[in-house]
Amino acid sequence: MSFDQKELLCLIYKLTRLVVPDTRVEHDTMGSVNVPLDRYFGAQTMRSLMNFPIGGMEERMPRAIITAMGVLKKAAAEVNKEFGLNESISSIISKAADDVISGKLYDEDHFPLVIWQTGSGTQTNMNVNEVISNRAIELLGGQLGTKDPVHPNDHVNMSQSSNDTFPSAINIAVAIELKETLYPSLKVVIAALEKKEKDWKDIIKIGRTHLMDAVPLTLGQEFSGYKQQILNSLKRLDSTLPRLYQLALGGTAVGTGLNTRAGFAKKCAERISKLTNLPFVSAPNFFEALGARDAMVEVHGILNTIAISTMKMANDIRFLGSGPRCGLGELSLPENEPGSSIMPGKVNPTQCEAMTMICAQVMGNQVAVTVGGSNGHFELNVFMPLIVSNVLRSITLLGDGLNTFCFNCLEGIQANTAKIKQIMNESLMLVTALGPHIGYDAAAVIAKSAHKNGTTLREEAIKAGIFEERFDEWVRPEDMLGPI
Amino acid sequence: MSFDQKELLCLIYKLTRLVVPDTRVEHDTMGSVNVPLDRYFGAQTMRSLMNFPIGGMEERMPRAIITAMGVLKKAAAEVNKEFGLNESISSIISKAADDVISGKLYDEDHFPLVIWQTGSGTQTNMNVNEVISNRAIELLGGQLGTKDPVHPNDHVNMSQSSNDTFPSAINIAVAIELKETLYPSLKVVIAALEKKEKDWKDIIKIGRTHLMDAVPLTLGQEFSGYKQQILNSLKRLDSTLPRLYQLALGGTAVGTGLNTRAGFAKKCAERISKLTNLPFVSAPNFFEALGARDAMVEVHGILNTIAISTMKMANDIRFLGSGPRCGLGELSLPENEPGSSIMPGKVNPTQCEAMTMICAQVMGNQVAVTVGGSNGHFELNVFMPLIVSNVLRSITLLGDGLNTFCFNCLEGIQANTAKIKQIMNESLMLVTALGPHIGYDAAAVIAKSAHKNGTTLREEAIKAGIFEERFDEWVRPEDMLGPI
Amino acid sequence: MSFDQKELLCLIYKLTRLVVPDTRVEHDTMGSVNVPLDRYFGAQTMRSLMNFPIGGMEERMPRAIITAMGVLKKAAAEVNKEFGLNESISSIISKAADDVISGKLYDEDHFPLVIWQTGSGTQTNMNVNEVISNRAIELLGGQLGTKDPVHPNDHVNMSQSSNDTFPSAINIAVAIELKETLYPSLKVVIAALEKKEKDWKDIIKIGRTHLMDAVPLTLGQEFSGYKQQILNSLKRLDSTLPRLYQLALGGTAVGTGLNTRAGFAKKCAERISKLTNLPFVSAPNFFEALGARDAMVEVHGILNTIAISTMKMANDIRFLGSGPRCGLGELSLPENEPGSSIMPGKVNPTQCEAMTMICAQVMGNQVAVTVGGSNGHFELNVFMPLIVSNVLRSITLLGDGLNTFCFNCLEGIQANTAKIKQIMNESLMLVTALGPHIGYDAAAVIAKSAHKNGTTLREEAIKAGIFEERFDEWVRPEDMLGPI
Amino acid sequence: MSFDQKELLCLIYKLTRLVVPDTRVEHDTMGSVNVPLDRYFGAQTMRSLMNFPIGGMEERMPRAIITAMGVLKKAAAEVNKEFGLNESISSIISKAADDVISGKLYDEDHFPLVIWQTGSGTQTNMNVNEVISNRAIELLGGQLGTKDPVHPNDHVNMSQSSNDTFPSAINIAVAIELKETLYPSLKVVIAALEKKEKDWKDIIKIGRTHLMDAVPLTLGQEFSGYKQQILNSLKRLDSTLPRLYQLALGGTAVGTGLNTRAGFAKKCAERISKLTNLPFVSAPNFFEALGARDAMVEVHGILNTIAISTMKMANDIRFLGSGPRCGLGELSLPENEPGSSIMPGKVNPTQCEAMTMICAQVMGNQVAVTVGGSNGHFELNVFMPLIVSNVLRSITLLGDGLNTFCFNCLEGIQANTAKIKQIMNESLMLVTALGPHIGYDAAAVIAKSAHKNGTTLREEAIKAGIFEERFDEWVRPEDMLGPI
Repeated sequence: MSFDQKELLCLIYKLTRLVVPDTRVEHDTMGSVNVPLDRYFGAQTMRSLMNFPIGGMEERMPRAIITAMGVLKKAAAEVNKEFGLNESISSIISKAADDVISGKLYDEDHFPLVIWQTGSGTQTNMNVNEVISNRAIELLGGQLGTKDPVHPNDHVNMSQSSNDTFPSAINIAVAIELKETLYPSLKVVIAALEKKEKDWKDIIKIGRTHLMDAVPLTLGQEFSGYKQQILNSLKRLDSTLPRLYQLALGGTAVGTGLNTRAGFAKKCAERISKLTNLPFVSAPNFFEALGARDAMVEVHGILNTIAISTMKMANDIRFLGSGPRCGLGELSLPENEPGSSIMPGKVNPTQCEAMTMICAQVMGNQVAVTVGGSNGHFELNVFMPLIVSNVLRSITLLGDGLNTFCFNCLEGIQANTAKIKQIMNESLMLVTALGPHIGYDAAAVIAKSAHKNGTTLREEAIKAGIFEERFDEWVRPEDMLGPI
Repeated sequence: MSFDQKELLCLIYKLTRLVVPDTRVEHDTMGSVNVPLDRYFGAQTMRSLMNFPIGGMEERMPRAIITAMGVLKKAAAEVNKEFGLNESISSIISKAADDVISGKLYDEDHFPLVIWQTGSGTQTNMNVNEVISNRAIELLGGQLGTKDPVHPNDHVNMSQSSNDTFPSAINIAVAIELKETLYPSLKVVIAALEKKEKDWKDIIKIGRTHLMDAVPLTLGQEFSGYKQQILNSLKRLDSTLPRLYQLALGGTAVGTGLNTRAGFAKKCAERISKLTNLPFVSAPNFFEALGARDAMVEVHGILNTIAISTMKMANDIRFLGSGPRCGLGELSLPENEPGSSIMPGKVNPTQCEAMTMICAQVMGNQVAVTVGGSNGHFELNVFMPLIVSNVLRSITLLGDGLNTFCFNCLEGIQANTAKIKQIMNESLMLVTALGPHIGYDAAAVIAKSAHKNGTTLREEAIKAGIFEERFDEWVRPEDMLGPI
Repeated sequence: MSFDQKELLCLIYKLTRLVVPDTRVEHDTMGSVNVPLDRYFGAQTMRSLMNFPIGGMEERMPRAIITAMGVLKKAAAEVNKEFGLNESISSIISKAADDVISGKLYDEDHFPLVIWQTGSGTQTNMNVNEVISNRAIELLGGQLGTKDPVHPNDHVNMSQSSNDTFPSAINIAVAIELKETLYPSLKVVIAALEKKEKDWKDIIKIGRTHLMDAVPLTLGQEFSGYKQQILNSLKRLDSTLPRLYQLALGGTAVGTGLNTRAGFAKKCAERISKLTNLPFVSAPNFFEALGARDAMVEVHGILNTIAISTMKMANDIRFLGSGPRCGLGELSLPENEPGSSIMPGKVNPTQCEAMTMICAQVMGNQVAVTVGGSNGHFELNVFMPLIVSNVLRSITLLGDGLNTFCFNCLEGIQANTAKIKQIMNESLMLVTALGPHIGYDAAAVIAKSAHKNGTTLREEAIKAGIFEERFDEWVRPEDMLGPI
Repeated sequence: MSFDQKELLCLIYKLTRLVVPDTRVEHDTMGSVNVPLDRYFGAQTMRSLMNFPIGGMEERMPRAIITAMGVLKKAAAEVNKEFGLNESISSIISKAADDVISGKLYDEDHFPLVIWQTGSGTQTNMNVNEVISNRAIELLGGQLGTKDPVHPNDHVNMSQSSNDTFPSAINIAVAIELKETLYPSLKVVIAALEKKEKDWKDIIKIGRTHLMDAVPLTLGQEFSGYKQQILNSLKRLDSTLPRLYQLALGGTAVGTGLNTRAGFAKKCAERISKLTNLPFVSAPNFFEALGARDAMVEVHGILNTIAISTMKMANDIRFLGSGPRCGLGELSLPENEPGSSIMPGKVNPTQCEAMTMICAQVMGNQVAVTVGGSNGHFELNVFMPLIVSNVLRSITLLGDGLNTFCFNCLEGIQANTAKIKQIMNESLMLVTALGPHIGYDAAAVIAKSAHKNGTTLREEAIKAGIFEERFDEWVRPEDMLGPI
């Protein structure tokens, strides 16, 4: 490879679909590197960008991680003021961090690193340090790349290590996304299901077990089951929060807290808590908080469970809506777009399809998180960008997906009451109501005869010697919806 | 296939490694079947046995499910007495159920069905009904197979369906196994780790991040991280229990509770609670309790998390014990058996290997449970035997594995203090302590020079103009174990 | 724990459900151990049995591994004769190995070790060495446990290591099981599907995409798709065989072949090839053959694919057979057993349920194999018992499951021709045939009107100005089954 | 939600980070829709964009799928000329398709749809149809949105369905990406490993099994094992190609080929083959080709196997490079960037970390593909965008990752020969060479004494009565590298 560094830089930039930039020189402990003139990042970010040309823009470190890092850097700078950091430096770091927190600097491509870098997120931590340092220097009228008066390591990263900041940012990012994306969408779905439960409380339909005709229930009862699943989803998420709110910050390099001051960890957690309005605390054991990412595995185990709940609901709905003439046909789903490029007039349960594909993705992400979580060694897990990117993607997809599914499908579903009634009355399993009166074995004979002869239960029951009045009294779907 | 039924029966029995038996005739709604004379099960069990010759004895429905079904049948019989079941029948069912609960009838091969049967566990429910019925008949001096005076459906299964009994038995079995197998073994491991934490609180060792030399910590601190992981495991399990304790019983066929009496569900849950000494309750929504197995997916998500925690600990221990001469050599693991059939004197970390293999199995089981959980349709999930067999296997393997690992490895680990001290002092990362005094960049130059020249940090620091006394004051491993 | 060894032995034996035995003393390089008098195994097996009380009999090392080890030991003994092993010792080892190969000694409990032991299978290799040694000594009239005149290491294990024998046994066992279990069952299913394809070639039915009504095809065409999936399964398995047939034997401890003689590896592979009638060869690179288990991951990737194919087929069949009155009702599945303990006369697609549960298990096993395969380190993968037990279980379950599914379900399925015809004719998607004549947009209007008005396509087409004759000519299901 | 459509459009566009555009009106069978003036797509694309606001730009349908659709549309247009399509329309479609094939129109955001849409990819097929139609109309000087003279359905989609085009595009895209991305990077890695194998053929080092000291091998031999793994990867990929090259095109809506002409399928496959220079053929059974995506599951099974092989290699390399002073220290990895924000001078195996994180992602993707593949129903699998996006992502990540790993790590690794030699000579496992001379048991005694006493093997062997000369003759690492 005969490229010089400038050429390589341009090539990398082309590859990552940015315009080729003018450059300035930045330094780190390994020497000097050209970086684009209009970017705040420095030498270490640039090295990582050149060393990891993997997958391009689609594979960038997620935005939520960068904004969480902004929160953390702001909090640390403000706490460090109490432990000797120059007040004006503290204050300018805090100000520069605000543009990281808002996402502005991410959207303007100052955080170009991909997920597939060092497993500790060190270069992303340095990316944040460098951007805040240079942005602060700029705000103070200084010259980018001089590290003066705001040094990325000595000031922005003061009392910190990648090894405690990145795990903390993971927990902050995931907690915020849960709160802002997944919890609200689950609640929206619950409300929609509750409405169906009420609206359809009197529509009696055939139940199905093993896909086969069974005894009746109401359509409202059926949807109440889905509601319970999503209600449980909320409780399941809640149960993981105590461990999600524990921050590694203060553990520094290996968990001992070397180079921090007593009290730093606790004060930072309090500050972060205030900035995010979420009850973060300092982790009870920093060695666990650095060496393991178990809380992520735990949270994703619940996301996986939510995917399972959702998949069941979405599958049921599309099967119940199958047809319109050759399927079950109990429900009509909203018609959102033409369903076929060859079959005119076809309409498909596309929202259910998007939703179930998302669920399958979450099940896959579960394994990625699991493998990453299981491969930590000694004082640090180094599968962190992998782990957090999967957790965040699952949250986004489930959150957006449930919202979309709810607005574009669930809320608009109609019950085909005529069809529902017709097939319910044909079911042979109404025979179950005879069980307590004539015994299981005798009832079975009646059902089997009707099936074999293509007749109704009533006909066969009478043939078997049951009085008509008795049959009509015993076999009433509306009496089969609960205990006696 | 020209076998007649008797021949086929014998063949099946040979295949399932039982001696060919004499037979009697049993009946069900499909007709009559020969069953072995010395077995309590009846026609439906026999049909399932013949229809599902899959995998043999190794694939039997787990014992814990059968004993949980025994608990449930006993409770139901006792409650049914309040709702019209003849008192002597109630009482003999209760008595017969005791031999199911104790595991006696399972161990004597009255429950030969495999996991790979109907996905609702219907034939296993009928197997239990038939065995209890016949055992009760026998206790009363009656004739096996007559269903008189104790009918498997009308009496033993009174007010029940496979669709509410089997899901209930799943939750009962898993709750009991967690209590009896996994919780105790986690506690044993915590105690062992706590002892190590204390015993080794003063052994200073090199930390490792990215597998590379980092700053020091104590061996006790390192093991405290593992302890925290296992402590968290207990909390994680605890958080799933509220949903695990919810029983489907009372929902009968589709969740409506058809053919039960008001109050039956609640009374049964109370009775089961008393029999097991665990706080079971009636599920808040039977449609969810039959249609979904989300609580199993949730519990296994935690088992998966425990496997991840355990794998990290076991991996660390075997890496720290690697050598004895060409590895890290910080720990000596107990020598339990000769390690090689060709290399004399070799000893291997076999307990870590068994433990990590178990963890890998649990990660696999997680996917089986997930796929099963996601494929329920309408009023009933029919992947139940798959789901519960994986959950129970994970509990058994983790529980037994952790016990074995603890007794045969963890408790006996010795610290090689000489080796630990020697390599810790060689580490270049002690340079980190210079950071706050001379800055990150200057400190890096010293570390890099020492690495390049094969010298000590001290030599290079002095070369760089740091007074000896200062170096010795600043770079003290024993001062690097916590915040200032 | 205050047990002495004898007591512990008894306890272990009770735990593993064997009768408490009288004992003799056996020795290994760590000292002496009591072993049951009536067992051929020796000290190392006994140590492993005591050190790994995990899961009991259900978790035993699979039979196929032991019989494959028998094949290997026989082959090695015969080849060693050419390299200096005493001829009579060679011959008695070969003879003793025959009882291992037949499975007799496994069935008589001389191989009690569980999967969850050392990850190299060393103790299972020693178990085989000890059993063959003692059995050979017995055949020669010697005394068990004396290692004289047949030593388990020096003679039975001559020129071998666990590290090359166990990986070889894995490949041998899997290759044999594929040949004897999975290939035949796939062929049986193909034959059954081919019959359906032919029998049903003229039954025109509605096609379904997105679960929604689409254009017609024949039931035979539908089943031909499943046949193609299973035909592909055979080709997929075939494609893995070249790497499966490569044996590690001859690599000994780390792949160098230390302590073997030139030519040993090749001659052993030839001998094993002759004994098994399968084309085994010596691996092209022993370092890969010991350090990686990639061939197992590859084979299981195909088993996973077969599970996917099978799951699709079994799911389709049970959905097509759903009903009988409130589902799709196109197929009638054989009625094998009563389907419900509460709903009399209910019959369920239980074979499809067992089959799809098996598929879910295989998908889980895939992850266990993957995690095990990815965690090998340096010269040896030590997740081997985990890996092979999952591969073998998947083969057994798929093989037995497909057989059972075929005999008890597939072959007996009936087409409900009346129902099939009725719903096919109602489908609005026959409108697709109008597309080439009047354009996609105009055709869509007709279909949508019919759907909205609950009318037939014909009515709406005529309303839209198409001549009746034209409609009847253009819209003929029997002309919609292939290209023009 | 009180937005009107224009407002919603703007909102969606903001959300998807495009500038708010002026609009024109486009029509489909459901009515009219505003679309951005400067985009070629039409009503159906716009509907999907509005109906599926899930995840934003990061979740777009992969570029490779769109370019493959371009190839397919071009081929179909050219073949359709032979079956009645107006020659000038055929020719302008072919020309417009070229800008799809080159990726130009994708990069200019004419394909904004996300993965999470209908599971058949119908809207992506329509997106391509609409873009080509409008682009062709523009080339002919017509007005966008008029569908005249080039209609998206009647002309661009002529003789096609989403149901055969999208599965075909999947196979085309994956085959091209394998050829262009993964095969080359595997070959680059093989070359690098082969160089190491040769360069290091004489460096004798300690072998390690169970992480414990074992007998020696050369560093070249160790790396030859990795080379064999990657060589096998090529063969494994090769074995899947026959089924990957089978195209669904010609099956149209359900596999029957309705609305195509005899010969269309075969001619299209030939044309696509010519355009891509890959041997595509028409699928032997269209029902399988539409209903199943087994070939994708098969291919990903191999990608998963490649991930396993790669993970083993990358793990070994970072463990062998661990240190520099407190680890194994046998290898020195290239220093690419500063490794720590707190520990000055630290350098980490970051390339190994990125690579192993990628492997974990591929293992997760395997499950997503598996779940998607298993959930197809009847005539069409509707998890296709999920499946193909995971397969393509795995190819990209493995391909880019292996390249990066090779250039930035593997090629630059140095062997620390002094350290390698030193620890090799200390190993007690050289005792294995004594086995054939003095027996396994006696050799074990010597090794154990040396371990216990901290002495050398030589000292203990002499103490045990072996002559010095004999020991030096028997125990020579350079003689332990192969069979005798």
